[in-house]
Amino acid sequence: MAGVGLVRLLFSSDDRPGIVARVSGFLFAHGANIVDLQQHSTDPEGGQFFMRVVFDARRLDLDAATLKSRFAEEVAAPLAGRFRLAWAARKKPAAILVSRADHALLELLWRWRRGALPMELKLVIGNHAELKAAVEAFGLPFYYVPVERGKKAEAELRMLELLGEAGVELVILARYMQILSPAFVDRYPNRIINIHHSFLPAFAGARPYHQAYARGVKLIGATAHYVTAELDAGPIIAQDVARVSHRDGVRDLMEKGRDLEKRVLAEAVAAHLEDRVLVYENKTIVFD
Amino acid sequence: MAGVGLVRLLFSSDDRPGIVARVSGFLFAHGANIVDLQQHSTDPEGGQFFMRVVFDARRLDLDAATLKSRFAEEVAAPLAGRFRLAWAARKKPAAILVSRADHALLELLWRWRRGALPMELKLVIGNHAELKAAVEAFGLPFYYVPVERGKKAEAELRMLELLGEAGVELVILARYMQILSPAFVDRYPNRIINIHHSFLPAFAGARPYHQAYARGVKLIGATAHYVTAELDAGPIIAQDVARVSHRDGVRDLMEKGRDLEKRVLAEAVAAHLEDRVLVYENKTIVFD
Amino acid sequence: MAGVGLVRLLFSSDDRPGIVARVSGFLFAHGANIVDLQQHSTDPEGGQFFMRVVFDARRLDLDAATLKSRFAEEVAAPLAGRFRLAWAARKKPAAILVSRADHALLELLWRWRRGALPMELKLVIGNHAELKAAVEAFGLPFYYVPVERGKKAEAELRMLELLGEAGVELVILARYMQILSPAFVDRYPNRIINIHHSFLPAFAGARPYHQAYARGVKLIGATAHYVTAELDAGPIIAQDVARVSHRDGVRDLMEKGRDLEKRVLAEAVAAHLEDRVLVYENKTIVFD
Amino acid sequence: MAGVGLVRLLFSSDDRPGIVARVSGFLFAHGANIVDLQQHSTDPEGGQFFMRVVFDARRLDLDAATLKSRFAEEVAAPLAGRFRLAWAARKKPAAILVSRADHALLELLWRWRRGALPMELKLVIGNHAELKAAVEAFGLPFYYVPVERGKKAEAELRMLELLGEAGVELVILARYMQILSPAFVDRYPNRIINIHHSFLPAFAGARPYHQAYARGVKLIGATAHYVTAELDAGPIIAQDVARVSHRDGVRDLMEKGRDLEKRVLAEAVAAHLEDRVLVYENKTIVFD
Repeated sequence: MAGVGLVRLLFSSDDRPGIVARVSGFLFAHGANIVDLQQHSTDPEGGQFFMRVVFDARRLDLDAATLKSRFAEEVAAPLAGRFRLAWAARKKPAAILVSRADHALLELLWRWRRGALPMELKLVIGNHAELKAAVEAFGLPFYYVPVERGKKAEAELRMLELLGEAGVELVILARYMQILSPAFVDRYPNRIINIHHSFLPAFAGARPYHQAYARGVKLIGATAHYVTAELDAGPIIAQDVARVSHRDGVRDLMEKGRDLEKRVLAEAVAAHLEDRVLVYENKTIVFD
Repeated sequence: MAGVGLVRLLFSSDDRPGIVARVSGFLFAHGANIVDLQQHSTDPEGGQFFMRVVFDARRLDLDAATLKSRFAEEVAAPLAGRFRLAWAARKKPAAILVSRADHALLELLWRWRRGALPMELKLVIGNHAELKAAVEAFGLPFYYVPVERGKKAEAELRMLELLGEAGVELVILARYMQILSPAFVDRYPNRIINIHHSFLPAFAGARPYHQAYARGVKLIGATAHYVTAELDAGPIIAQDVARVSHRDGVRDLMEKGRDLEKRVLAEAVAAHLEDRVLVYENKTIVFD
Repeated sequence: MAGVGLVRLLFSSDDRPGIVARVSGFLFAHGANIVDLQQHSTDPEGGQFFMRVVFDARRLDLDAATLKSRFAEEVAAPLAGRFRLAWAARKKPAAILVSRADHALLELLWRWRRGALPMELKLVIGNHAELKAAVEAFGLPFYYVPVERGKKAEAELRMLELLGEAGVELVILARYMQILSPAFVDRYPNRIINIHHSFLPAFAGARPYHQAYARGVKLIGATAHYVTAELDAGPIIAQDVARVSHRDGVRDLMEKGRDLEKRVLAEAVAAHLEDRVLVYENKTIVFD
Repeated sequence: MAGVGLVRLLFSSDDRPGIVARVSGFLFAHGANIVDLQQHSTDPEGGQFFMRVVFDARRLDLDAATLKSRFAEEVAAPLAGRFRLAWAARKKPAAILVSRADHALLELLWRWRRGALPMELKLVIGNHAELKAAVEAFGLPFYYVPVERGKKAEAELRMLELLGEAGVELVILARYMQILSPAFVDRYPNRIINIHHSFLPAFAGARPYHQAYARGVKLIGATAHYVTAELDAGPIIAQDVARVSHRDGVRDLMEKGRDLEKRVLAEAVAAHLEDRVLVYENKTIVFD
């Protein structure tokens, strides 16, 4: 649900009685009307508490900065909670990183242009130059930052510079085929989303679609997750599968895989942009 | 989530600021710890407010009856709200109505016996006698109440008697092929769940699977809903589809349809038993 | 499966013994190697026979025209069969008709450009001019053919002229919001593909997504079919559904519906282009 | 499609021109009418050829044994092909192996009793005695064959004896928690079907549902496969997934997993019983 005066509050803490009462009491006292609230505790005893609240802020008696500081002081601090406040009307500044494959990139650009991904897309960076024209056709700047052997640090520095200047808050890896260094990842904790193929059972090593074909799998999958220092082991945001059969050759598997990847990535990005994702102990709570 | 001391509260009213604060404040004041809360408003202005709260009642300072009366007086009445309180540990008394087909019945009985459907199953009523042995094998009483031409009222009276004596609160139509009278339906408002096949596009008239076959549909569907006076037009609780192809003859469609029906019906019954369904203006809010 | 020397044969007739032997014997005798064959009979007695054969024609001892005429004479005529021969390497000339919505159009253009839809796309015709720039960005001609009140015949004449000059063999309606006249449809029998939303249950009349919302459906669907004189009742090629909930407003339903429509339409177009669809008595056989 | 006079032929060999012509020519010459034929070649050059033919044998001029020997001699031998002929009316003798969990067992028994699994179920063997009554309620003999530490060979010998006496041709592991020895497996090559959970990504080691929960997966899966000497690495017959969320605890994952397992196992068993599965190089071709 979008709307001019809507604000989203994400809150988490150790569970204890009275959190909902305290948070909702604070909001009510300042003129906010809750329009959507989802709460989840992992356990009634000693569990973790997670909550997403969307409230109508048009009759709020505080400005944004004051709301934030007073909530921090009067609600979050006493409960030892972590929180985030996001105005729905403010689109998050974002960037996309690509290599040569265009399917995930184009899906994002199309959905973004149609208004289905509420982000302020600032730039696209490619470690190859092939997708420059495709990106510029959308009126977006494309930066070519090649990653030469042994000079990854320089390339990442350049990328951080570009991202920093543009004030980017979300980095989307749309089949970006370089592994980001832990130093880079640390700059955007739970702010970099990646997509990769997944299989049941999993196939380690190179050419996974060839392995999946050799094994005769009946399903192929894709997983979108936040990037952490450990490769492809970050918190999962979205997953889906597609059905395949013996009639599908390796190229068919790849084509179906691409369709799946772009769809699952877009779904994960939408969840992030709408502040529906909370991360806790390397797993996500994704509110509907 | 099940648990000894858990209570579920379903609450709805016209939307207005402060409802969450009021409800959660009341609960907190009396020692309840909210473990799951989902709230939904149809519109920030002039919409409807729906909420499901699960709270841990082990440290409650009120007994059940007092909790209910004080909540009614102090919270619901001022907000002109409707509510329901259900102790998770209390299994709802239920009955199943059947005709000749056994697939939906057996699916319910098996899930029930495995503990996946938290109801206190009291009896099964059939307008045919064929399923008597199958039911009794589960240690349940089976009542044969035939519906003779022109004597439906008598049959329904007998059924209401059986249901009433057993204190039944939920009636499940597991392919019960008689249309219940409005008078019967009125006795169990949003307490009778039915399942029927659904197609895209829909097929009116007799032998829908034959029509679906003739039309070459690629999907068949099933819809579970609460029964209202208007036939098959009650609030939808659950729906699903299965894929079919030109290789499927009418009998294959029927077999796939049965698989689907039993699964969708069981899903709808579970949602009801776990107090996850709210009805408003002939549609449902089904909380996760 | 694509390939330089592959030919696809679609054959149907009344069922009788010996058809496979006759067809495969003919092909073998002329140096063709069958690489994929799917056959289906509706009934062993008095049913209909449908077959799709893909064969490797690189060692064929006949040229294309002779193959066709001799197959017609020696195989099809004695069996009173209908057949179609299509060289996989020859991409079918196609056109897209649009109105204002761009989602289905863009999905087709993207897949086409990526090589996933093996057609020779000749032109796009719009009864509105909005999508001209989007189409031309793909290097395709866009023709604006408005349909003025009372002048539909003139507009259709102009469209038929454009399609005829371009030698178009497949017309894709990508959310083209005009109803085509029977005369137009007759010019492209089983050669016009349309997409529309579908629901369980179905909703007649205007604003179906509003009706679906009002009814609280849990699934929305889309159906792609060949256009026949009877509106939206032509042979179904592909169908799919997406899950929705009470959290989805009418606009969310529409967005999910668009995603679904574009995907299902692309799937149906691919099936047609790969000669996997046979039509019989207003239903399709879609080979894998 | 079932039917009194139907015969299924599964044939595979190195690919070469003329196989379909030879097979269908032979069948036609002896009065068989092909009602369903699916053929697949992995590659037009040097690939493998797989075919399933269903034919109406009511007007056959050979008896079953002669058909088989002459087909072997006149068709299979010259093509160096492997084949299997199965009369649809003959139900394959089968056995189920279980431990303590009843969900997969009961699903099979119910489907079997309803006629949806065309097998002649001979017996159930359990390495625990718990499911004896449940099995006997279906009128089937239950044999308790415990597997004591260090005495697995004796137990397997007893099981092979029971299976052999009953003439069993298909062994279904319905959550049988013992690992079968290579010697046992060799007695039933591609004749033992197992089911196990699958995840994206995969989780090695104990308590996979706990691991999946800890990792916050959004999908859980199940894979049915033929048992080979290498554990859980045999040819995959069927796979499916179910959606889960952060609201699902470990027990919910397990319950959903059970539902999935029983469904996928039943699907795989049906494919085997209908002679729709061919195995080649540790992968399956599953015809529709």
